Amino acid sequence: MDKKETKLGLTAKKENFSEWFSQICSESGAQLADIRYGVQGCVVHRPWAMKILKKIYSEFEREVEADNHEPYLFPTMIPEENLVKEKEHAGFTPEVFWVETAGSQKLERRLALRPTGETQIYPMYSLWIQSHKDLPWKGYQSRITVFRNEMTTRPFLRGREFMFFETHDVFAAHNEALKQIETDMQIMDRVVKKKLKIPFVFFKRPKWDKFKGADDTFASDSLNPDGRRNQISSTHDLGQNFAKAFSIKFDAENGNKEFGFQTCFGPGIWRIMAALIATHGDDNGLILPVDFAPIQVAIVPITFANNPKSNMAVMKLCEEARQIVAKTNLKAHIDTRDESPGYKFNDWELKGVPLRIEIGPKDVEKSQVVIARRTDRKKTFAPIKELARLVVEQAIEVDKEISRRAEESFKDNTRTASTLEEAKKLLKEYKGFVKTPWCSTEMDGQKCADIMSDETQGGVVCGTPNGREEKPEGNCIICNKPAKHTVYLAKSI
Amino acid sequence: MDKKETKLGLTAKKENFSEWFSQICSESGAQLADIRYGVQGCVVHRPWAMKILKKIYSEFEREVEADNHEPYLFPTMIPEENLVKEKEHAGFTPEVFWVETAGSQKLERRLALRPTGETQIYPMYSLWIQSHKDLPWKGYQSRITVFRNEMTTRPFLRGREFMFFETHDVFAAHNEALKQIETDMQIMDRVVKKKLKIPFVFFKRPKWDKFKGADDTFASDSLNPDGRRNQISSTHDLGQNFAKAFSIKFDAENGNKEFGFQTCFGPGIWRIMAALIATHGDDNGLILPVDFAPIQVAIVPITFANNPKSNMAVMKLCEEARQIVAKTNLKAHIDTRDESPGYKFNDWELKGVPLRIEIGPKDVEKSQVVIARRTDRKKTFAPIKELARLVVEQAIEVDKEISRRAEESFKDNTRTASTLEEAKKLLKEYKGFVKTPWCSTEMDGQKCADIMSDETQGGVVCGTPNGREEKPEGNCIICNKPAKHTVYLAKSI
Repeated sequence: MDKKETKLGLTAKKENFSEWFSQICSESGAQLADIRYGVQGCVVHRPWAMKILKKIYSEFEREVEADNHEPYLFPTMIPEENLVKEKEHAGFTPEVFWVETAGSQKLERRLALRPTGETQIYPMYSLWIQSHKDLPWKGYQSRITVFRNEMTTRPFLRGREFMFFETHDVFAAHNEALKQIETDMQIMDRVVKKKLKIPFVFFKRPKWDKFKGADDTFASDSLNPDGRRNQISSTHDLGQNFAKAFSIKFDAENGNKEFGFQTCFGPGIWRIMAALIATHGDDNGLILPVDFAPIQVAIVPITFANNPKSNMAVMKLCEEARQIVAKTNLKAHIDTRDESPGYKFNDWELKGVPLRIEIGPKDVEKSQVVIARRTDRKKTFAPIKELARLVVEQAIEVDKEISRRAEESFKDNTRTASTLEEAKKLLKEYKGFVKTPWCSTEMDGQKCADIMSDETQGGVVCGTPNGREEKPEGNCIICNKPAKHTVYLAKSI
Repeated sequence: MDKKETKLGLTAKKENFSEWFSQICSESGAQLADIRYGVQGCVVHRPWAMKILKKIYSEFEREVEADNHEPYLFPTMIPEENLVKEKEHAGFTPEVFWVETAGSQKLERRLALRPTGETQIYPMYSLWIQSHKDLPWKGYQSRITVFRNEMTTRPFLRGREFMFFETHDVFAAHNEALKQIETDMQIMDRVVKKKLKIPFVFFKRPKWDKFKGADDTFASDSLNPDGRRNQISSTHDLGQNFAKAFSIKFDAENGNKEFGFQTCFGPGIWRIMAALIATHGDDNGLILPVDFAPIQVAIVPITFANNPKSNMAVMKLCEEARQIVAKTNLKAHIDTRDESPGYKFNDWELKGVPLRIEIGPKDVEKSQVVIARRTDRKKTFAPIKELARLVVEQAIEVDKEISRRAEESFKDNTRTASTLEEAKKLLKEYKGFVKTPWCSTEMDGQKCADIMSDETQGGVVCGTPNGREEKPEGNCIICNKPAKHTVYLAKSI
């Protein structure tokens, strides 16, 4: 066997992550996204992916609703004049798709396909918000897509149309806005770090990499196995910039008209899916945490041609097992496809189902089933009478192992560079963050970032780890001026 | 008080349904849709509507998944060449919005915003479906929007962008397709007739009013209070038309390559929302069946200025009541807004909340609460110890009354006309269907339909009631040829 290929024909994840990722997504992999749709950067989300994505969406919906956000849904098309109202934000227009014709009629003014929601939502906020009694105002839209004319595209990483989730909040005071940003980060911790078991670092982005129109951007980066950072969320301190551009004013308690302070939060649903695939998957396919697996226990009957009586007993035990598992609230499925057991084993491994139950004639004799874990393939013989307890126990073990592996690969993820040469070498050889002294994270530091990016073939300044910034030592590795910050560098996807 | 206005300023529903409907949707009504977005026919779905719409979506998702449909999500943009592949279906192109530019670059080929999913989904089906083992193939996409360049637009009735839900199924044989259409109709019965309590009639549409590219269309029509029919779903027998256009072929058991037989089903999420508003609402606002109310019990504290001790006792009892109600699985909300009780009563009535609980100082003394039903405003005094039982009882009563009223207004909804003059008079004066003999529901009957439409100022042929077609008596009321069918006429929205 070629060492780059598993028996499934998957490229080894460590050898060529990019190739492995494409294969996992494809028809011959876990059938997540079909890129054969015919419009570049626009993919078909297939059922296995949709079921996972819906669970991810539900988690965020539950969290933001618990934080008093109300759901709404805005149109897909945005009038051009909205897009350019906030001067900095107008920088989005080169990336947008334009609708210019309806039927055979030219539209009087062209409409953009939403690249992000601010410019469609805030004009309505200026109508809805009148008084300090209306604040805080918290809204969100979920299960929508946005459109950007990206040049290079990949499923779940960068698309011309991709899945979106956004909250938009207005406060009477700036400190409340900052508190909301903390809350947003806690939501990311609970959903992504704890439930999805994806490690990441929160950064305050340098000013040149903030959201167009924001005062500050806070973003979380996970690491792909090839060492590239994957931005999986952002939450922005918009100050009063958009409030002023879109006239979001309220009657303050003191009787004055005042502009609101705004935040917006966007967990990247696609990027989180990409991180889920990249962080947990192995050379045999996806690996899904139990709560996010569309099927949690795949039951595979081992039957034999020309033995109908034995096969019937096997099927009967499969059904008995299914009912027992279903009662534990794990979702079980009996695979009755007209394929070999080996094919089915591989297929459920590819799809990342946490547990497999195998049942053959010998198991019928012994009134037992075999439980196999997706993570380490360890098998447990479970007498049918103890199945309920053992299947839950094994599911917990799979989740533990997923966490353990993810933490293992993420820990010790940061090296230190005190010269550009060191940074170059590390960004090339080492798969993680590179910590280094930097002149400034204000706009005047961008020039050094551009030089660094050229020198390192695409390195970026992720920013300073939020809440645990380190005192810089020495000088900026590019301009040699005294460093004001210790920043983290990484390659970006 | 002007008899056309309630004390809330709502137009009376019976006097001017159209005006009433607009008010219910608006800022001063139940705040369902905001038409001030700035693009005609594209509305903002506000939180109260979104919460109801999400419940409607969930019902259909649950139903079609129980019927083995798998979820997927397709891109919003469709290449032009897809749209014109099925010859009859190409008739959609005059209605579509075209994306022609990305950033400042003209696209090489223009892309349509999806008017409906067939032409994006079926090319993928031709890749995915290979063998009879793959059939039946059942998929759906939910929580999406579609785009059509409608001339006149109204929230939930007709939009340039509106909410969509669609299933797309492929079968090996035509009789299986017909069975699926029966299943689709049963889903409508369970979700819309039974749960949403909206009466409607299933019709087989005349051939000239079938879906473009279908062999036959079956559709359900509810009736608005002004007598206009509201098409709330359709399910199509596509035969092999699209299969041939998009090459959806499979290896049959007999070894031949065969084209699949297809159906698609679209409950109109927007139209069902419109029917929900129109069927149940009254002059005080929306009325929501218990299962579809975002808040099922609104608790209104009756407090008085300068009586902090009494107010505290009231609030304490409100919280006690809330907890008791929550345990019955009804969603309760204490309205603590800085507004008068009267304002709050009106507001919850406008929003259609099924039950209101009022709690004042006298109730505290008696350890009781007052439960008021939204439907008939009947009040029940509930000792706090019996609240759990009584609140559930009252919720059931509200649902019963909603059903009773809806059935009452729908029954006896059909008159008979044996001449054009009778049909004209009935369609003008009578608010319902008009049954009449008709020459043909094949294409050759369309000419008579056009004449009838002109003569009756917009009457349409709904078709023949599915499964209970009546033997025609006499001649077609237009051309006077012997009638082949008894058809139903109605005004359309």
